[in-house]
Amino acid sequence: MNGLTELGQRAKEAARIFSRATTAQKNQALEAIAHEILQRRPFILQANQQDLEAAQQNGMSKSMQDRLRLTDERLEGIAQAVLDLVRLPDPVGQVLEGWTRPNGLKIEKVRIPLGVVAMIYEARPNVTVDAACLCLKTSNVCILRGGKEAIHSNQALAGVMREALAACGLPADSVLLVEDTSRASAVDLMNLRGYVDVLIPRGGKGLIQSVVENAKVPVIETGAGNCHIYVDASADLEMAVAVCDNAKTSRPSVCNAVETILVHRDIAPDFLPLLKAKLDEHQVELRGCARTASLIPNVSPATDEDYATEYDDYILALRVVDSLDEAIDHIQRYSTGHSEAILTNDLSHAQEFTSRLDSAAVYVNASTRFTDGGEFGFGAEIGISTQKLHARGPMGLNELCSSKYIITGSGQIR
Amino acid sequence: MNGLTELGQRAKEAARIFSRATTAQKNQALEAIAHEILQRRPFILQANQQDLEAAQQNGMSKSMQDRLRLTDERLEGIAQAVLDLVRLPDPVGQVLEGWTRPNGLKIEKVRIPLGVVAMIYEARPNVTVDAACLCLKTSNVCILRGGKEAIHSNQALAGVMREALAACGLPADSVLLVEDTSRASAVDLMNLRGYVDVLIPRGGKGLIQSVVENAKVPVIETGAGNCHIYVDASADLEMAVAVCDNAKTSRPSVCNAVETILVHRDIAPDFLPLLKAKLDEHQVELRGCARTASLIPNVSPATDEDYATEYDDYILALRVVDSLDEAIDHIQRYSTGHSEAILTNDLSHAQEFTSRLDSAAVYVNASTRFTDGGEFGFGAEIGISTQKLHARGPMGLNELCSSKYIITGSGQIR
Repeated sequence: MNGLTELGQRAKEAARIFSRATTAQKNQALEAIAHEILQRRPFILQANQQDLEAAQQNGMSKSMQDRLRLTDERLEGIAQAVLDLVRLPDPVGQVLEGWTRPNGLKIEKVRIPLGVVAMIYEARPNVTVDAACLCLKTSNVCILRGGKEAIHSNQALAGVMREALAACGLPADSVLLVEDTSRASAVDLMNLRGYVDVLIPRGGKGLIQSVVENAKVPVIETGAGNCHIYVDASADLEMAVAVCDNAKTSRPSVCNAVETILVHRDIAPDFLPLLKAKLDEHQVELRGCARTASLIPNVSPATDEDYATEYDDYILALRVVDSLDEAIDHIQRYSTGHSEAILTNDLSHAQEFTSRLDSAAVYVNASTRFTDGGEFGFGAEIGISTQKLHARGPMGLNELCSSKYIITGSGQIR
Repeated sequence: MNGLTELGQRAKEAARIFSRATTAQKNQALEAIAHEILQRRPFILQANQQDLEAAQQNGMSKSMQDRLRLTDERLEGIAQAVLDLVRLPDPVGQVLEGWTRPNGLKIEKVRIPLGVVAMIYEARPNVTVDAACLCLKTSNVCILRGGKEAIHSNQALAGVMREALAACGLPADSVLLVEDTSRASAVDLMNLRGYVDVLIPRGGKGLIQSVVENAKVPVIETGAGNCHIYVDASADLEMAVAVCDNAKTSRPSVCNAVETILVHRDIAPDFLPLLKAKLDEHQVELRGCARTASLIPNVSPATDEDYATEYDDYILALRVVDSLDEAIDHIQRYSTGHSEAILTNDLSHAQEFTSRLDSAAVYVNASTRFTDGGEFGFGAEIGISTQKLHARGPMGLNELCSSKYIITGSGQIR
């Protein structure tokens, strides 16, 4: 027995109707949602206050409380992000390819919604609006299962969105919230075969691993980013310092931040002291190989585990390598397939690096921090895929779609 | 502990090397494989004979034995199919999109192999060569786990392919066969996370269900086809009879054969007797609604279960409907999302049918039997996806690929 079957049925039924909404109707609904979020700020903030009080009582960390907190200003930001979606092109209905067969059959490949998109996420109520509206823009129905810490906020936000949809003559059930935030409801959602076309987990490593290992519905794995930069012998020193500093310290907690920097032995004596001086401004803790430690002070030894770790913090692993080959070998061994960069002025090295590494994003002379839907120009992002199936790297509206073939004939038989 | 971890490691290592093979090297290897299959026919047929003898002793059905059987002629056909792959364009390295960001970053989306493709299949040894060579053409390494009934044939065929690869200077481990054909080895393959990029089951419903429900690696679901044809009031009678007959009787055992035909009430009195006369030539058993039974003889009552069943046989379900809406409702309720067709001369009905149904292939005035990689012009097919993620409908070489982004800058930071 699956406790969410009835919710799954409601989602399927809503999808049947909502998938027929025109671009104009969907944009109207998004505008209504943005408007209602602003109008009903007191109601939403009151619900959020309930969550915040419970969080304090339960001793939630300050940084977690900050993620949970909604304010007037944050709600304005959330509403603006919804309005930004209105201006993006609608991917649904785009003809991706088309051709005519020798027997006269015309085949068209047309972009369609995935259908029912499920999300499991943690204590960030902004994800509730963000995910729902990305789904609405792409004609998908969503089933949202947020963390229990944010349940009152999520109920308020989902309620406001559902009312806005209904006021626009669209099914309220196009946005469904799982109100039961027990572990069992997450498992039920992972097992909702026949109702969920894709499940996208958004949150920490533990959540994503649990979903990937337990789900029986199709999943897109997101987020794990053990990213590398290789500083080649021919790299511009000043650029290399700036890029490495940016990739580590501009926002260390995110998945596209660099975790290990590999340095060619010929440039290491010049580069490492400059890098260390820059990183010292942010008190970055350094762990490295013996050669690194011989060139700069205050480097603790890096273990295999260090090289495999996504610190998401002001900690950086360093390693001096003898060659491009050694750098590629290291990356192939430890990478999670997210983002890697080479800093070089050697064309053949740039070509070899980009062709041999098969991470989602491979950079030449730029910071790994650009692996992001906004920075790629997608206008919106539902997550960053680190698997090879369906979508790779930043996932925008197109990646929330599937396709179908429409074949037109005049009585052809086989 | 996973009994296949060592095999997974070998696959990953082979993929690192094999993914660098050029189109010319891959085509040379395919030619060598075709040549060796022909050269070593006696060896392969001897191994197949062992399987056939065991099959007889175990009382395998005649039709299963036929699937298992290799002959000189069949091996020639298998070798020819490998040579046909040589002539197809190589999808790997194609630039799918490219653009420049306002900050000067150049972004290219490039097609790459998936990496390691695993297949679980049953007692058809031709799949061993077919699947391996589709993977080789797309720079993928494959792990093949066929049924125990075909193990000697598969060992011989995989051995010949591995020797041909090695003779061309490519890793023999680009083709790996799981020699243990116990249930446990299939489960191990489904759980080989970190080594298998996608698992494609090929075979009967039981096999596919088991893989989809148990796998922890990404899966592409294939094959289930409860296909429909709706004969609209405006359909051309002669065309409708020909298409329906073709869709049911040209090859009833395959997934793109029609299982239920829905007939508009206005055309039913004229159409059903003509259809029955045609289907009687193949002794097709008919099950239908009361209205169907009132119009033609020898129709047993169709249950809900009938409408949900993929007969894969000379059995057809029929239903008279009052409208296009009722036909669409029926299809949405019972379809597995494979292929549906409308036979009509009414433009708005054709448009509504093709826009509202989201099966992988939706036809106007043609037989559902065209849902096939060859018929679509793909030149080769690894299976027919009935899920919405990654690939839909016939999967050719492109669908055996992923993509990555290559981003080129001049020191951009964020």
